[in-house]
Amino acid sequence: MMQVNTLIDQVIFAWQQLQQKSPLVQCITNKVASNYSANVLLACGASPAMIDNPYEAESFTRITNALNINLGTPSSEQMQAMKISAATAHQKNIPWVLDPVGYSPILKWRSDMVDTLLTFLPSVIRGNASEILTLAGESIPSKGVDSTLDSKDVYPKATALLKYSPCIAISGASDFILSQETDQVIEIKGGSALQPKITATGCALGALIAAYCAVAPIHIATIAAHVHFAIAGKLAYESAPTLGQFNVAFIDELFTLNAEKIKQHIDIQIH
Amino acid sequence: MMQVNTLIDQVIFAWQQLQQKSPLVQCITNKVASNYSANVLLACGASPAMIDNPYEAESFTRITNALNINLGTPSSEQMQAMKISAATAHQKNIPWVLDPVGYSPILKWRSDMVDTLLTFLPSVIRGNASEILTLAGESIPSKGVDSTLDSKDVYPKATALLKYSPCIAISGASDFILSQETDQVIEIKGGSALQPKITATGCALGALIAAYCAVAPIHIATIAAHVHFAIAGKLAYESAPTLGQFNVAFIDELFTLNAEKIKQHIDIQIH
Amino acid sequence: MMQVNTLIDQVIFAWQQLQQKSPLVQCITNKVASNYSANVLLACGASPAMIDNPYEAESFTRITNALNINLGTPSSEQMQAMKISAATAHQKNIPWVLDPVGYSPILKWRSDMVDTLLTFLPSVIRGNASEILTLAGESIPSKGVDSTLDSKDVYPKATALLKYSPCIAISGASDFILSQETDQVIEIKGGSALQPKITATGCALGALIAAYCAVAPIHIATIAAHVHFAIAGKLAYESAPTLGQFNVAFIDELFTLNAEKIKQHIDIQIH
Repeated sequence: MMQVNTLIDQVIFAWQQLQQKSPLVQCITNKVASNYSANVLLACGASPAMIDNPYEAESFTRITNALNINLGTPSSEQMQAMKISAATAHQKNIPWVLDPVGYSPILKWRSDMVDTLLTFLPSVIRGNASEILTLAGESIPSKGVDSTLDSKDVYPKATALLKYSPCIAISGASDFILSQETDQVIEIKGGSALQPKITATGCALGALIAAYCAVAPIHIATIAAHVHFAIAGKLAYESAPTLGQFNVAFIDELFTLNAEKIKQHIDIQIH
Repeated sequence: MMQVNTLIDQVIFAWQQLQQKSPLVQCITNKVASNYSANVLLACGASPAMIDNPYEAESFTRITNALNINLGTPSSEQMQAMKISAATAHQKNIPWVLDPVGYSPILKWRSDMVDTLLTFLPSVIRGNASEILTLAGESIPSKGVDSTLDSKDVYPKATALLKYSPCIAISGASDFILSQETDQVIEIKGGSALQPKITATGCALGALIAAYCAVAPIHIATIAAHVHFAIAGKLAYESAPTLGQFNVAFIDELFTLNAEKIKQHIDIQIH
Repeated sequence: MMQVNTLIDQVIFAWQQLQQKSPLVQCITNKVASNYSANVLLACGASPAMIDNPYEAESFTRITNALNINLGTPSSEQMQAMKISAATAHQKNIPWVLDPVGYSPILKWRSDMVDTLLTFLPSVIRGNASEILTLAGESIPSKGVDSTLDSKDVYPKATALLKYSPCIAISGASDFILSQETDQVIEIKGGSALQPKITATGCALGALIAAYCAVAPIHIATIAAHVHFAIAGKLAYESAPTLGQFNVAFIDELFTLNAEKIKQHIDIQIH
């Protein structure tokens, strides 16, 4: 059984490792998220590289410390790169995060690719409640790429996905993290209602999970990335409650997180 | 004959509908604009989805509430998606906005595609003075994708475009909006001289017009989107007159617009 | 022999010309940099156009005032456009800047294209220390697209590249600029430690060098662009020492540079 106190120490240690090692994170991500994800990774201490063509995918993934694959706005060349990079990561034991943006019967092209990518056993699958539930085989109404469901209603059904990946993360007002290692479900609170009003925050979180996976065990890494976001979102909102200012303050807070702030503001519950 | 007072009430009602319905807006847009357009849509109350591949274009456009097509930096796959999505929107009576960025003899590939897209009768054509005038069949010198002309000199010639679309919008220091329904031309003042110093503001305006078209009659929707931008630009400049700060304040003002601010700051003239 | 005082006058004159002429700059650049580079160009006084498809590359490059080619995240269509645009610029004597992002044996596809592009004799080659050293034929360990080397250790070896281009610029804590015209090496200090924590600043600098090349001799243009960035970075950090705020202030400072600020803050050394 995990204890909250142990968990906090592990999150702090993961954050320290991220600062010290500054891992190289390859992101094959969507047009909307590419600049933002790179800036979030830099702010948090990692080193981004957005190499997303099939001709360099294998050789580059072999030297990367972690990989993030996001299906937001794929091109055919990106799709080929995803398959090659996921296969390479799987073969070389490089941690990789799958973000199945828009997974649904309506978006068949990407959903078929997600099904293929699952065979390369992602280290973490992260998504919003709608995507995770659909991926877990439930049939639900979807609204574009944003979720219409509550993550706390979804997590019991997400266990079905643990056959593809050791760790499942569902983001929402609260985030829920499931793991093959334990029956416990971790709930992370914090953040701000303004976060979903900034595009690509979920995508950038996927990239940050990958970064943490390069320096910590997968389950801890996933929790640490969500805590990093939740605290930064909460503190940013306290100092800047309007949307434009919030986005600036959010980057400030991602950048200035430290052990003291983690201890003081972490809000984790074990179910 | 439209009256300014009636128009103001309709703009306020359209804004309220946008907040309440948060319509799903598909954007097939350029690399420069994708993140910014999504953030502008979110700030204004809509729900963006940047699905731009030909394999999912038809099934996605069928469920979207509005569509924005922008020719800024097309790839071949985006071009195919544009044609499919425009055809689908036309067939399903889904409102769609055409932004013929760079329309000119020098940029033939996109200009030919714009000509094809016109056959699917866009709900609104919006552009700067150079693009609209060239599209209306005039021959003018162009400077890249930015206009060298004044919108007030152009609007009388833009009536030629009303055979393709019920509503034509020309952005500039003042914006001018033409409609099939009336001989009146609406002029909208406001904004800030800093707005054209931020890339993709025109592109994001096109996305916002689409969002309003999902919740209001096309002519009112187009006016409302321009008013939303004009007031936000004016108020942002008052609180933040330097370029970087202005961009942050602009998002703040797009987000915090309300009926009171519309009443107080709207600056419309009917010609 | 160049004198620092003469150089300062030339940099000021170049900046004035940039404001007055607002040259059109075509950028074929990466996904991460496209929005940021366009905003930097606008803030500095230039007029950006991100035309990057092979079907319009030739006709557009013929009318552009300068061209920036950046290999960050190429697609096949962008690669074709790069070749056509570089050839056109070479043939028409239009200044063009090559930014060989990620040049290394691991990223063979782009590195082969860079080798091809060199045959069209770029006006300026700019990169970080790792890229420039590898391009100069040295074998070094690389970490993704970020440099692991110090620019001051690299510049003596970069002279090998002067056979491809009249001007070589190496960015880092200090920037170093080499020229065919002189044995003197120009060192530019300033900037801020936060600059490399914002993605695509180097890419945007490449675009700005191109802009200056449209209005000033190549060597002066390259120096002026680096000075523009160095002063803006330094002043931004003085007013906003946290990452999110810094990025906003940086755009402010790029926009509000003037002759007085250049005189007061320029920090150039001639070696």
